[in-house]
Amino acid sequence: MSLYDASVPQFKRMLTNLDRWLELAIAHAEKKPFDPNVLLVARLAPDQYPLTRQVQAACDAAKFGAARAGGKEPPKHPDTETTFEELRGRIRDVITYLDTFTRDDFAGVEDRLLELPFLKGKLITASDYLYQMSLSNFYFHVTHAYAILRHNGVPLGKTDYIGAANLRNPE
Amino acid sequence: MSLYDASVPQFKRMLTNLDRWLELAIAHAEKKPFDPNVLLVARLAPDQYPLTRQVQAACDAAKFGAARAGGKEPPKHPDTETTFEELRGRIRDVITYLDTFTRDDFAGVEDRLLELPFLKGKLITASDYLYQMSLSNFYFHVTHAYAILRHNGVPLGKTDYIGAANLRNPE
Repeated sequence: MSLYDASVPQFKRMLTNLDRWLELAIAHAEKKPFDPNVLLVARLAPDQYPLTRQVQAACDAAKFGAARAGGKEPPKHPDTETTFEELRGRIRDVITYLDTFTRDDFAGVEDRLLELPFLKGKLITASDYLYQMSLSNFYFHVTHAYAILRHNGVPLGKTDYIGAANLRNPE
Repeated sequence: MSLYDASVPQFKRMLTNLDRWLELAIAHAEKKPFDPNVLLVARLAPDQYPLTRQVQAACDAAKFGAARAGGKEPPKHPDTETTFEELRGRIRDVITYLDTFTRDDFAGVEDRLLELPFLKGKLITASDYLYQMSLSNFYFHVTHAYAILRHNGVPLGKTDYIGAANLRNPE
């Protein structure tokens, strides 16, 4: 196993789940009915990000996590999304980017020292960065997106959150 | 690296952070002032867990994640906590339990097949279980505990969420 196994597949899995929650949110709004766009500016506290920014931040956490640890230049996303369709396109775009990584890109990178743009003058190993900052920050924003939808009545459950796990039948 | 690195240290780190958020919640309540115990029953949706149960579930996700993948019998916790002090004791107890694990306990367990009590008749590898179910579920409950406190005005920020990362000075 490598840092790849600990990060990229789960980034992709949870972004796929997040995309499904947005799809279910639209369906819920259309059924009630109300304008689904009101959910995009919903937030849990006045000084927390609204849904749109939570989705963008989740996408960035995954993109930068893979790019910095795996040593590839990430694509730019200027945070201009204003609709569910655009947010879902952003998610798909990041999943496509994550698909370009292989286990080989992460071979032996555990102790590679990274300098992060928001921590000038300090270094962190790729391993510590992924576990302590990137993955935890990714789950922070993914879970806040989920919680904002649940708080606003979108019918989601733990199965939607976890998604499809690799279950096996006994031989 | 092993599955140990991907799980136990981050379980401990985030539980330590969670304990700090509860401490800051008590301080916030005493300053306003209001009875801190009202936060224990706060929830973001009527069919989501309140704070107490989110903390208990975070503790269980970490405990069972380490126990099942690392092959040790977990201690029992009957979910009887009704105060902040008891919840913080539960967190400390689980951290102490996680301290009993070493990297050796996780050596070569990646493909060990686990049968989970809530998925009878199915199997999952220890690796898939930790990444796809245990860690994601752990972050779900930790982040919901954080979001409940933020929604109720407790002054927490991303630094409190992430905690102290292993930053290094350039040589």
